[in-house]
Amino acid sequence: MNIYAENLRGRDPAYVMSEALLRSIIDPELKAHITVRWNDDPDLRALAEADVFVGGGFDHQRVAKHAQRLRLVHSTSAGIERYLPLDWLPSGAAFTNSRGIHAEKAREYMTWALPALHAGLPRFTQAQNERRWDRKLTGLIAGKHLAVLGLGALGGAVAEAARALGLRVTAVTRSGKPSPMMRVFSIEHLAAVLPTADFLVVACPLTPATRGLIGAEAIARLPSTASVINIGRGPIIDTTALCAALSQNRLAGALLDVFDVEPLPTDSPIWDTPGLLVTPHVSCDAPDNISRSLQILGRNVKKLLDGSASQLENRVDGDLGY
Amino acid sequence: MNIYAENLRGRDPAYVMSEALLRSIIDPELKAHITVRWNDDPDLRALAEADVFVGGGFDHQRVAKHAQRLRLVHSTSAGIERYLPLDWLPSGAAFTNSRGIHAEKAREYMTWALPALHAGLPRFTQAQNERRWDRKLTGLIAGKHLAVLGLGALGGAVAEAARALGLRVTAVTRSGKPSPMMRVFSIEHLAAVLPTADFLVVACPLTPATRGLIGAEAIARLPSTASVINIGRGPIIDTTALCAALSQNRLAGALLDVFDVEPLPTDSPIWDTPGLLVTPHVSCDAPDNISRSLQILGRNVKKLLDGSASQLENRVDGDLGY
Repeated sequence: MNIYAENLRGRDPAYVMSEALLRSIIDPELKAHITVRWNDDPDLRALAEADVFVGGGFDHQRVAKHAQRLRLVHSTSAGIERYLPLDWLPSGAAFTNSRGIHAEKAREYMTWALPALHAGLPRFTQAQNERRWDRKLTGLIAGKHLAVLGLGALGGAVAEAARALGLRVTAVTRSGKPSPMMRVFSIEHLAAVLPTADFLVVACPLTPATRGLIGAEAIARLPSTASVINIGRGPIIDTTALCAALSQNRLAGALLDVFDVEPLPTDSPIWDTPGLLVTPHVSCDAPDNISRSLQILGRNVKKLLDGSASQLENRVDGDLGY
Repeated sequence: MNIYAENLRGRDPAYVMSEALLRSIIDPELKAHITVRWNDDPDLRALAEADVFVGGGFDHQRVAKHAQRLRLVHSTSAGIERYLPLDWLPSGAAFTNSRGIHAEKAREYMTWALPALHAGLPRFTQAQNERRWDRKLTGLIAGKHLAVLGLGALGGAVAEAARALGLRVTAVTRSGKPSPMMRVFSIEHLAAVLPTADFLVVACPLTPATRGLIGAEAIARLPSTASVINIGRGPIIDTTALCAALSQNRLAGALLDVFDVEPLPTDSPIWDTPGLLVTPHVSCDAPDNISRSLQILGRNVKKLLDGSASQLENRVDGDLGY
């Protein structure tokens, strides 16, 4: 069993896989041969012999070209839209992602994001910049209505945080499959849900079906007292339309953690849109995420060797895109 | 039974007592005579005949001069430091405050304030101002240690919010009276508690014993990774020392909701201290607070008439100052 781990040069050190970390997670009984390289300094011979490739933000065409024996490719991210379609995967190889590892952190992020937006935090930070005392009292958040787009690990964490704060939650998902915990509508009913939402939270994968889903039309359906949060992927929201709505007071506020281009470019109009708070893609990531991701890999490597490859954890459906 | 309610001109409309609101709360069977006036347009005859005075931010010397029949003075605030000492009270009259009405809102404020500070929100808002992507991942807040100054209604709400987020809580109070819910130290042990705190939250009344309690010396005892929150009263913290510590990276962050002078003056150095977030005295106030305060008054007026004046709710101890 040859495992090839590739680190992306320049990425946040929190994502770097060290050989020691991999050895501490991959069962030593598997006697795996582990190679750890930077993306700009590959070991092409080791790549050619790899059974397993693990990385984040990697160049899948290059991987496919050199690593033709692969049986498993593991993404250290949950969002894998950049690798779609999966037609580059060697035939018979599986692709797994890291969905689920972000749920705890996402729940904590939502636990502050929702009542902070409700209290008017963007208004306060703007007033602080202008050395202005802008007092406006708000009641409690309990009883407000939150619509969450997506009900996977991330959307589930959003719903959990919201319910703990006393909000009513409605989920909008691809299938609309019922949940015992909340009302669920399929994506075709999004337009009917939006006018009832005090909060709209985007927590779904980026797929052809969700790209641009929250555009000018959807935003216009939200009440002017509503706030929008995006912890999913930037391109699901048309930020030009969102910023226009905020500037014209057609929305109460927004908190964006993900963007079309990251890092958010210095000249982006998003930075100083009134009522909009920016956090730099921190909603779902914690310093131990890479270790959590590799634990999924560790369990899957065992399954490969056990001959139970059909039961791989977090296998991505290339057609659905997650 | 004559009730005289005085509104403070220019105050937030949320605090204004209308005659209709008072009539809806004071039991009609009491056949109370209710007078509602602005502070700059008093009815001195009605004041002279008042049994009960209710107001917020009132001139107690003026009230004492004109209203010599008073049996009860009710403050619509919880903090009553401005009326101390209570030697102006007509002999035999009781003074009550509105402690307790702020607890729910305070709990919600703390529910966002703590994880937001933990995530580095002041850093993010500062970076946003500068159109700068400043990513730093943090883990979960659970297990961090919070020291709360005061364990009245407000401090209790802080402790409750913190425990729900998974923090360990230590309270520091005047008496150090034990609690089944957490460790409690008397104020003499503050210096020993500070070096162990990840968060220091000020939630006690302003008294001669607490004024300036969190000064340069106390702040120097906090770890450089600690954050400070003040939802009590401004003068409990020496903000000059606090801002110096933040500017020199001797503290991680701060969230101030109360100030020595409110509104915070435009030229205050607090506005642009790095790592410091300002909210405009909204942590504990909700639009329905005035109605909650008057409900305390309504119950107390009944007790006065029942002859159970010794059981008045929220009676202030003039010696303790709360």
